[in-house]
Order: sequence, then structure tokens, then C-alpha cells
Amino acid sequence: MDFKLHNTDTRTGARTGEITTDHGKIKTPIFMPVGTLGSVKGIHQRELKEDINAEIILGNTYHLYLRPGLDVLEQAGGLHKFNGWDRPMLTDSGGFQVFSLAANRKLTEEGAIFRSHIDGSKHMFTPENVMDTQRIIGADIIMAFDECPSGTASYEYAKNSLGLTQRWLDRCVARFDSTKAKYDYSQTLFPIVQGCVYKDLRIKAAEHAASLNREGYAIGGLAVGEPAEDMYEMIEVVNEILPEDKPRYLMGVGTPINILEAISRGVDMFDCVMPTRNGRNGMIFTSEGTMNMRNQKWVNDFSPLDSNGTSYVDSFYSKAYVRHLIRANELLGGQICSIHNLAFYLWLVREAREKIEDGTFYEWKNIMVEKLGRRL
Amino acid sequence: MDFKLHNTDTRTGARTGEITTDHGKIKTPIFMPVGTLGSVKGIHQRELKEDINAEIILGNTYHLYLRPGLDVLEQAGGLHKFNGWDRPMLTDSGGFQVFSLAANRKLTEEGAIFRSHIDGSKHMFTPENVMDTQRIIGADIIMAFDECPSGTASYEYAKNSLGLTQRWLDRCVARFDSTKAKYDYSQTLFPIVQGCVYKDLRIKAAEHAASLNREGYAIGGLAVGEPAEDMYEMIEVVNEILPEDKPRYLMGVGTPINILEAISRGVDMFDCVMPTRNGRNGMIFTSEGTMNMRNQKWVNDFSPLDSNGTSYVDSFYSKAYVRHLIRANELLGGQICSIHNLAFYLWLVREAREKIEDGTFYEWKNIMVEKLGRRL
Repeated sequence: MDFKLHNTDTRTGARTGEITTDHGKIKTPIFMPVGTLGSVKGIHQRELKEDINAEIILGNTYHLYLRPGLDVLEQAGGLHKFNGWDRPMLTDSGGFQVFSLAANRKLTEEGAIFRSHIDGSKHMFTPENVMDTQRIIGADIIMAFDECPSGTASYEYAKNSLGLTQRWLDRCVARFDSTKAKYDYSQTLFPIVQGCVYKDLRIKAAEHAASLNREGYAIGGLAVGEPAEDMYEMIEVVNEILPEDKPRYLMGVGTPINILEAISRGVDMFDCVMPTRNGRNGMIFTSEGTMNMRNQKWVNDFSPLDSNGTSYVDSFYSKAYVRHLIRANELLGGQICSIHNLAFYLWLVREAREKIEDGTFYEWKNIMVEKLGRRL
Repeated sequence: MDFKLHNTDTRTGARTGEITTDHGKIKTPIFMPVGTLGSVKGIHQRELKEDINAEIILGNTYHLYLRPGLDVLEQAGGLHKFNGWDRPMLTDSGGFQVFSLAANRKLTEEGAIFRSHIDGSKHMFTPENVMDTQRIIGADIIMAFDECPSGTASYEYAKNSLGLTQRWLDRCVARFDSTKAKYDYSQTLFPIVQGCVYKDLRIKAAEHAASLNREGYAIGGLAVGEPAEDMYEMIEVVNEILPEDKPRYLMGVGTPINILEAISRGVDMFDCVMPTRNGRNGMIFTSEGTMNMRNQKWVNDFSPLDSNGTSYVDSFYSKAYVRHLIRANELLGGQICSIHNLAFYLWLVREAREKIEDGTFYEWKNIMVEKLGRRL
């Protein structure tokens, strides 16, 4: 993997750049749609490319390890071959899911023992086997295995947790660097900077991660219940330390406003289930604010779903039709809103990129943050 | 509406023809995807056109009357404008749903009183107001309001029911002919021939319907629990009587085998929820037989979903991937199987049409019926 930093905004920490992987290039800042089980929920791969303009998508190690399982993925020749997505992919390490989804989890120095949320079967994730698993899944960018404490963890808990995460990170790096890609393209490992909302822990974590000299870095454990201001502060603290010439990925974040604020603090990569999850519930994000498509307000509004929207669903379907579909629990309603939201997120980061390049990001961001906070 | 009968098979009752409506032409035999609430479940309108090659779709009067309701549909300018489908549409009359879905229904000479399956609200359908409702929905082809007895109804019940259905049919015709289309295109009313599995009742019903000299006719009350052989016999009895130069629509039928058998008995139009409903459950129909995508058999079969399939999903997605999606309850699995199944049904009727035209329908149908009955 290679990263070229292009422009850095003069009034904010925002930057543009380009990541090159063996599956193609990614212009940053970028948003990555989440394909938990190897599919972005309700969206065809063709739509991801042609309507949403996704440049890279995510897969979830925990989910893919359980279903379809490593045997199938290895026989397929990796996740790209399995799901037909031939552009770059990234997998998380399963850390977050082990701590949020799995049952009866038990943490040891060695790793995490847990029971599957599907059939209760017992499994163990270690830094080593999670590297091996991500070698098999075969994403271009893979993540270190970490503990994800809650947003309200005490300092004591967070400090001990970070110690474990750092020791695990060293083991991840050792395992990753002593193994080879399984398929005919290369993979890269991003460390994850943890430390909850504690500045000194974040500094320690970022310094440790930076010292490992990897091709990119992730910031984890944010947007897990802490105030947004704390999140922004932690991003600033961490990005002060992470090397400028490497991409920075803020995991699992967030609203369009969160994304613009994080871009302005030097983040390059994002993922979040919000566009699809909220979309399935009929909530859409637009450049003028959010809309709850269930509202009576749209009952006979036959104007296009989003006249500023860039995707075909925005002009083809009306607000009244989408409201009807969402209220009647018709699958198509969630599909339309998911396509809209993902296309909007991708538009937002493309637009941010342009504004950074032409030097107007600061003014644009302030206007957008105000608009994005509106409820239409 | 206009119908031109093209070819009639010499060895069976199969025919080809072309229906012309103000929203375009339909080549028969044709299968019509069901868009219950104004959307074919899980399928974008663009996919219906470009991937499935649907020439006409259905809407359900009962469902659309309840949601979004007539006010919205009228303000939209009819269902075509509301859902963006600009090719022909057909609506059923709601008779079937009143008798299968609604609660507390009460039948009188005047009409059917029932409670909504959604909110328990009380409604009455009469032949007159169902005509008015279908004027508002605005389908190109609309259906008479009828009673739909079960497939196991006694002769006595069926006879009385048919009497009512015939009196209602006369009232439908009177109302339809004394009202005008609400929008700038014409509509046509198809009578529905009922009579359960009783030959004399079917004859009586078909003669009555034929005497009304409409532009097309429907056969209802079949595939509701009676043996397939009874269904085929009733189709033969009815099609002996219905005018040759008018299209014949067999409502709610059925499997691919049912469709070929009915085509060979002179039916021109079909609709059924099976391709989408079974598709959402992971059951697909192919030219070599049916496949249950949940089966272990497909776990590492990375070959295309259906190498004989005509839709992009057939070559883009593998059996193993679709199996994974279906087993993991991923929305995309149902979407893929629904697109596949609808494209297959449309392929089947196009193929039947070609075989009728080139005089090989009889042999082809026999081979296909054997293949379609296989489980892969």
C-alpha cells in the first residue's frame, strides 16, 4: 500500500491524498460503506460502484469468521472473489464485535474467549489467529486485534486495557510481518490507537503506534458513548502524533457532521453503519439536513427524494413514494434510503476533498455543519 | 386496449399475441411481476425494466386502498406517476385479499364489509366503489370485484357464490361503462370467471363473462388448494368458451410448470408472488429445476448462480455467495433470488412464445416440464 499526501488545508488540519492498493486507488478523505457479512445490506455490488461511487468497502472479521467461515473464504480465493467486489477492501479485527456482540466473553493475556451470538459455539481470538484470519479473508487493509472498552470506562480500566491492546498490537505486528499474503496481492496492517477519552493514554497509544512505522493508522474506541467534543479532542491529540505522511482512519464514525469535524482534524478514512442502518428505518441525510421519511409531512410531496442528490434514486423516486414504502415496511424503501445515504456520504467526502484542494474547506465546512444539523 | 392474436399452436391450445395499451405493448404469453403495494418486493423499477424485462406489473387494490390510500394516489396522478413505472399496469379488485387477509368480513348482496388487517378499521367494498377505486389507482387493466371461495368449497356454496359474483360483475360493468378514466389514458375492465372446480359452474360463468363482450377475461379461483389436474381441466373448460380473439389471464398462478401447462391450454397472462416470495426464502427456479440455496450442497460451489440465466445476477454472483447471504439473512440474498426468479419467469414466457411461433412448443414444453420438476 502506498499513500501520497496531496494538499493540507491552511486553516484546519484537513488533508487530501491518495491511497494505492493492488485493487486500485482511493482518494482521501474517503467514506467506506460497511459490508458486515460480505454484503452492504440491501445493496448490489453494481449499485455500490455505479450509483454510490464507493472506492473501498469494509468487511467484519468476527462476522465473516462465523459465516461463511474461513474454509469457504479460503476456497473462494478470498472475500474479493467471494462477493465479486474487485476494488479495495478493509477488514476490522473483530475486536469491537467480540466486546459488543458475542456472549460470555472472557479476556486473558492470550486473547478473547467468547461464544458465537448465532449458535453459542465457543471460540478464541488471539492477535496471532486474527492476523491469520484476515490473511484468509484477504482484505487489502487489515486491523490489529484490540480490546474496545466502553466510552464510559474508568481511567484505571482504560489504562489496563490499553496495556493489553498494546501488547496485542506488538504480537499482531510480529505475526503479520512473519506471514505472507495468501493471494496474489499485498496486504497492510493498521495499528489501532485506543485510550478512551484520556489524553495521556491516547498520547501513549499514538506514540507506540507511530513507533511501529506502519503504512496507516486507525483511531478506535471513539463514538462509543462519550460526548462529541471529547471525541474531537482525542482526534486532535492523536493526529498531532501520528505521522503526517500516513493515512488515518477513524473507526465507526459517524454522522455527516462528525465526519466533517474529523476531516478538519486530519482524518482521512471513515466507516459507519449509520447510512444503511438509518436508511432502513427511513432516515435520510441530505445536504440541507436530515429527513425522517415516516413523517406525515411527506405524504403528498411528489417532488424528488432529494433534488440535490447525486444518485438515481434521488431523482427517480418521490418523497411521497418513499414515505409510503417505509411506512408499509416495503423492502424497497430501505433499499432506496440506503442507496441515497451512501451516495450522500460519498458525495460529502468528495466535496470536502474538492474544497480542501481549492482552499475553501473551512468556510464550506462551517456552512455545511449548520445545514447538516437541521431537521427538514 | 387492443389484442392481436398472432399464432396458435397446432398441437396444443397455446397462442401468441400482442396487447396494446396506452402505456405500451405487451407480448403474450406474459408473466406479470406482483407489486402489491406499488413496489415489487426488493426490486427497483430500473431492475424490473433492465434486468427482468418486465412488460407489465400488478398492483393490489386492497393494499393500495389501505396504504397509501386513494387521496395520495389521486393527488399523485395515479399509480404510474406515484411509483415511476411507465409501462402497463394491472390491478386486481381486492376480492381475493378481502377473503384471505381482512378480518371480520361480512358478505352482503351489496358488497363486502371487512376490517383492515393493519389497523382494524372498518371498510366496505362494493362492485361500484371498487371500480371507482381502480379508476383512481389508474391501472391500464382493472378487474371485476368478485367473491373468491376456497378451493374446497362445496357445490352448494360455489353455486351461490358464483351467483353473487355474476350479479357483482354486471354491476362492475355498469359502473365502469358509465365512468371515465381519471387520467389521460384509457382503462379496460376484465371480468373474472369463477366457479371453483365445478365444470357446470365454470361453463355458466364463462358464458356469462363472454356475453359481456369485454376486451379481455380473467380466470380466478384456481390454485387455491385444488389438485393441479382439476385446475388444468377448469382452464380447458373455460377457454373453450372465452372468445379466441381476447386475452385470457389466469390469476395468481403459479409454478413454472403450471404456467407452461396453462399456456398450452390457451392462457395468455399470468401473475404470481411465487418468484419473489420463494426468492426471499432462497428458493430459485432454473431451466434445469429448482434449487434451495440454503442447502449445504452449495457451500463451496463458486460457479455462477445460474449459468443458463439471463439476468446479471446469474453470472455476477456465485451459488456459494448466495447461499451464504440467504443463510445469514442478508437482504441482498433475497434481492438476488427475486431478480433471478422474475428474470427466469420472463425468460420462460418469452421462450414459450418463440416455441409457439416456430411450431416446436409441444415438444419443448414436455421436455421443460420434466426438467422444471427436478430438484437440483
